[in-house]
Amino acid sequence: MSNNDSIKVGVIGATGYTGSELLRLLLRHPQVELTVVTSRSEAGVALSDYWPNLRGECDLSFTAPSASELTAACDLVFFATPHAVSMHMMRELMAMDVRVIDLSADFRLQDIPQWEAWYGEKHACPELVEQAVYGLPEVNRDNIRDAQLLACPGCYPTSVQLGFLPLLENNLIHTDSLIANSASGVSGAGRQAKVANLFSEMSDNYKAYAVAGHRHLPEIEQGLNAAADTKVTLTFVPHLLPIIRGIHSTLYCKPKDMSVDFQALFEQRFANEPFVDVLPAGVYPETRSVKGTNHCRISVQPVDGSEMLVVLVVEDNLLKGAAGQAVQAMNIMYKWQETLGLRDIALMP
Amino acid sequence: MSNNDSIKVGVIGATGYTGSELLRLLLRHPQVELTVVTSRSEAGVALSDYWPNLRGECDLSFTAPSASELTAACDLVFFATPHAVSMHMMRELMAMDVRVIDLSADFRLQDIPQWEAWYGEKHACPELVEQAVYGLPEVNRDNIRDAQLLACPGCYPTSVQLGFLPLLENNLIHTDSLIANSASGVSGAGRQAKVANLFSEMSDNYKAYAVAGHRHLPEIEQGLNAAADTKVTLTFVPHLLPIIRGIHSTLYCKPKDMSVDFQALFEQRFANEPFVDVLPAGVYPETRSVKGTNHCRISVQPVDGSEMLVVLVVEDNLLKGAAGQAVQAMNIMYKWQETLGLRDIALMP
Amino acid sequence: MSNNDSIKVGVIGATGYTGSELLRLLLRHPQVELTVVTSRSEAGVALSDYWPNLRGECDLSFTAPSASELTAACDLVFFATPHAVSMHMMRELMAMDVRVIDLSADFRLQDIPQWEAWYGEKHACPELVEQAVYGLPEVNRDNIRDAQLLACPGCYPTSVQLGFLPLLENNLIHTDSLIANSASGVSGAGRQAKVANLFSEMSDNYKAYAVAGHRHLPEIEQGLNAAADTKVTLTFVPHLLPIIRGIHSTLYCKPKDMSVDFQALFEQRFANEPFVDVLPAGVYPETRSVKGTNHCRISVQPVDGSEMLVVLVVEDNLLKGAAGQAVQAMNIMYKWQETLGLRDIALMP
Amino acid sequence: MSNNDSIKVGVIGATGYTGSELLRLLLRHPQVELTVVTSRSEAGVALSDYWPNLRGECDLSFTAPSASELTAACDLVFFATPHAVSMHMMRELMAMDVRVIDLSADFRLQDIPQWEAWYGEKHACPELVEQAVYGLPEVNRDNIRDAQLLACPGCYPTSVQLGFLPLLENNLIHTDSLIANSASGVSGAGRQAKVANLFSEMSDNYKAYAVAGHRHLPEIEQGLNAAADTKVTLTFVPHLLPIIRGIHSTLYCKPKDMSVDFQALFEQRFANEPFVDVLPAGVYPETRSVKGTNHCRISVQPVDGSEMLVVLVVEDNLLKGAAGQAVQAMNIMYKWQETLGLRDIALMP
Repeated sequence: MSNNDSIKVGVIGATGYTGSELLRLLLRHPQVELTVVTSRSEAGVALSDYWPNLRGECDLSFTAPSASELTAACDLVFFATPHAVSMHMMRELMAMDVRVIDLSADFRLQDIPQWEAWYGEKHACPELVEQAVYGLPEVNRDNIRDAQLLACPGCYPTSVQLGFLPLLENNLIHTDSLIANSASGVSGAGRQAKVANLFSEMSDNYKAYAVAGHRHLPEIEQGLNAAADTKVTLTFVPHLLPIIRGIHSTLYCKPKDMSVDFQALFEQRFANEPFVDVLPAGVYPETRSVKGTNHCRISVQPVDGSEMLVVLVVEDNLLKGAAGQAVQAMNIMYKWQETLGLRDIALMP
Repeated sequence: MSNNDSIKVGVIGATGYTGSELLRLLLRHPQVELTVVTSRSEAGVALSDYWPNLRGECDLSFTAPSASELTAACDLVFFATPHAVSMHMMRELMAMDVRVIDLSADFRLQDIPQWEAWYGEKHACPELVEQAVYGLPEVNRDNIRDAQLLACPGCYPTSVQLGFLPLLENNLIHTDSLIANSASGVSGAGRQAKVANLFSEMSDNYKAYAVAGHRHLPEIEQGLNAAADTKVTLTFVPHLLPIIRGIHSTLYCKPKDMSVDFQALFEQRFANEPFVDVLPAGVYPETRSVKGTNHCRISVQPVDGSEMLVVLVVEDNLLKGAAGQAVQAMNIMYKWQETLGLRDIALMP
Repeated sequence: MSNNDSIKVGVIGATGYTGSELLRLLLRHPQVELTVVTSRSEAGVALSDYWPNLRGECDLSFTAPSASELTAACDLVFFATPHAVSMHMMRELMAMDVRVIDLSADFRLQDIPQWEAWYGEKHACPELVEQAVYGLPEVNRDNIRDAQLLACPGCYPTSVQLGFLPLLENNLIHTDSLIANSASGVSGAGRQAKVANLFSEMSDNYKAYAVAGHRHLPEIEQGLNAAADTKVTLTFVPHLLPIIRGIHSTLYCKPKDMSVDFQALFEQRFANEPFVDVLPAGVYPETRSVKGTNHCRISVQPVDGSEMLVVLVVEDNLLKGAAGQAVQAMNIMYKWQETLGLRDIALMP
Repeated sequence: MSNNDSIKVGVIGATGYTGSELLRLLLRHPQVELTVVTSRSEAGVALSDYWPNLRGECDLSFTAPSASELTAACDLVFFATPHAVSMHMMRELMAMDVRVIDLSADFRLQDIPQWEAWYGEKHACPELVEQAVYGLPEVNRDNIRDAQLLACPGCYPTSVQLGFLPLLENNLIHTDSLIANSASGVSGAGRQAKVANLFSEMSDNYKAYAVAGHRHLPEIEQGLNAAADTKVTLTFVPHLLPIIRGIHSTLYCKPKDMSVDFQALFEQRFANEPFVDVLPAGVYPETRSVKGTNHCRISVQPVDGSEMLVVLVVEDNLLKGAAGQAVQAMNIMYKWQETLGLRDIALMP
């Protein structure tokens, strides 16, 4: 499965849903040799016993290597850990010349006091935050290419940024009242054993949460501010959907001029993006159509009579919102074709 | 099950989901004797064969009576038909002195050209539209009491109106940019055999629809305009949820003054409403908590930093959004306790 | 809500799903005054804060009373606790002349070594097991009437016993190869925070479990042996369904004589049972049709060519499989109408 | 995507779920060039407009070619049509030297009167039935290799045959009382617009159907009889699961000798089968673990005390139960690696 140009890859913390998805992608990637998968709690357990979908696909077991053992075995390390883990290992890894793609939140926010306020603890290596590259290819492809430390964007932030980007970059909307009404599948809440995430609590149900403020808000604003080159004001309301995977963001904004051809604007902005698909006018995206793929689908719909523009964005929160985006970034970092290992077609139905 | 004050009730068209729910409520209502249930296509079929939940609960069969047979057997007639049915029978029924509660859309819109534009046909008895009473108890209780022809509100319109009412009635928000981001369970799409509503299409999926315009928009605007005593501008985006029942509306608006105590405002506005429950500050509603009940639950949440007010509203689309609201109106029309026959507690889980 | 004949009722341990359902039923029961609801972990918390469906329905809070405080406030006490709780309090309660309905497994099995083997601990008051009455009304109504200590049957055992009873009582089938292929909704697994019960694990999935042996097997066999008046041999395979509520048992057995009119047999056996509904020949039950109700529905289907008889049984695991059955038993114990407080019609859809 | 050895492939009738899945597989198959996809009702519609998952994956549109146009453009033709379609075209196709893989039921049953009884019409080309090869690789690989007309097995039959095969081939069980208790996801019912298949009818529900007899029964018996080399007696009860994809068969049988090492027997029987995975003793399969893959997973569990053997089998009804099996057969027919184009790993979660 590997060849001369292939790299050795390790995954730290693959006992959660993001890690599971990352393993699936890496095991099928033609340029990757998966060499190490770590977990302190599951050390010694075969991956294929822990994740039933991996039976017959992989002979590795979870291990708990030292940093030097890890870097000796890997060209590239992914973190699929909860927040506040990678920042404690990053200094050592950076010194060892390994490249890192961090799927956690530790290096996404450039504003360290803000990070510390939302995550409730001191940042362990603030000096590395500045050199971390934010891994959203659609805005940062050139920087990704040479990143040593890549901070992979969050799931909600990816969908909201992609939907607002063409508008903000071109200064076409009022920036004082953006709204992102987002809904996520339950896998976004992770694999922790919590009553709130039980089948009997989440099934046959729908609700908003964190309306007064969500950890992903500053990350989204950081990206929107950069695109707009000014401070935007966003109201972000996340909701929980009774589906496993999928994010749907319904974005609302006020154009300065309703006569702009927004359809053309979006089509041109993403014309060369392999994973952003602008749907024809009047066609709206659905979460199932991108499930299991790295695609993001976008519709843009001016609303007659209200001077409002609605943008609809769907993605798979575990792919374009996490593991898929990480593999896309890896492809860029190693100058491979950007779609390599990411060409699955969604199941229908 | 009936007594001296009980009335005889007929239901026209109980082969859909709204009709099913109405039958369930009427069969348990202590003042109601269900005498006639009509269906041309199912005439002769026992209700308990058509609706498996009614086995052992009811001996009636569907019939196809003439208008005079119908009114001879009923004090009150409910229409649980698709649009453009009741308007063809209403003139005759009104002349026969029977009272009517129409759960369909035929008499909701006072603006007849608007009705004709959205429903694509000529209205069959425009002269009766004006005398129809819009059956939202929270704004129209006094008129409901004496109504002969009651137009029961739509499911989306109920949730959106209840959420904006306290704000518009008191002139507290800017009316040029209201947003209603609503999500409905699939039963709202009815019981028609359509590929789009199959389990394999709707399950594990989420999407927006009718973004450019939905039939419920003019009904919502009619109510909001009346509450505001001015023309409001609303953007309404409905979505389809993979649940059977439930509507969740997430409303966005700009207060004129953020220092208003919105929590107290909502609590006072609905203090005497038996079916509107304003949740404590910081608690958000979920659709399952009102499933199978006539309750509407509302949260109001100012969003720091964005000068935006978010209102969250949930209801069961088949109860407070249809059959439950109709029974509530009946209770008012007959001066019974307003909660009669509507005291079920939601299943949990 | 109460009257002269009403009784004071306490519930021990209402923080799980069985307890939730029991509270819903008791709060609507016309002869019951709910006086005490206990929970050590939630003492002081309002029931309506813990269970969102109870907002506006109940002013009680969880408490942690002593046994004497409890019995002073109650005529009847329900246990809705995990196994191995009630047996530690039962001696004291029995001495205080209170009546008890135990929804847990502690007093269901007459064979104490068998109980100890399956539940992995010593039984705390074996001397009370013999006087406990097994609360399946369809076989034990007379004994239930005077019970002081009632052991409420498990969810799987109720469905399997009801389906085999008419056959075994009349010695019509071979007893050496009974099969019960059962499937349960996830609420049957309780409200514990376990990874295996997360939405993302259970949704969109189906599997068998405990194939080699399940704790409910000896309870089922105890009942079948009594009905047959001989030792039967049963293979019981439970499965987990991606629904919240509902048990469906598909039973297989070999009649001694295929020419028996099994349809008539079942109809006669349950003719006077208010909560067992034998469906017409060729009509099969579905779990949704009994959801939220205390009804059990049964079909019996001889299979041409295989000399096999198939019996299909559905119930709501939290009602006829737990809390509903407990209320039915209470109605019998207090000589009330057996259906009192149990007349809800299932939602459709 | 194609190379020197690649073949040109057509699909007849790809507007249903089996067709959708087949298109997904063929578009990613390295040896296949998809040249024609036919549909009379959708002629002219782009595949990527009809199936939203195919946007950007395929430029073809549905066409309605004549038989000669079709065979001119194809080396191999798949039928993904309802029953009673392919038999009307087969004589012409066979004469034109094209190879055919038929996913419908038309050529599965060798007993033509039986086929006519179950499908309610006269078979249009009985003389071709005998030369049709039944495409279950695990029993018929050698014949598949040279087939011109391949009849792809049904979804239930695949799971039931694979589970009983090792036992029947070795004469290890009593053949007079086999039981297959199967449960299928809703996609198995196809994409027809029927009320019974609506989300609001199938969701949150579970039921048996066709208990008295199902069209797949004779196909299953044909295979079991062949394996046993005697007439077996099977009771087959299918159920409907509220999931989109997946079949779970729970098989019951009586071994002649319980001391046989059934685990070893199954492991050896399927040791060289790329798509049959015998799970370790005590581990049971779940439908999600094979969703989207061509794998079948099997557990075998003797039940202490009942002298019964339980076999559990899962597959994706649209893959190993339909389109995946068809592609596996194609790989065999063209001497390619049997797993080509079938190496996807299931999503988890």
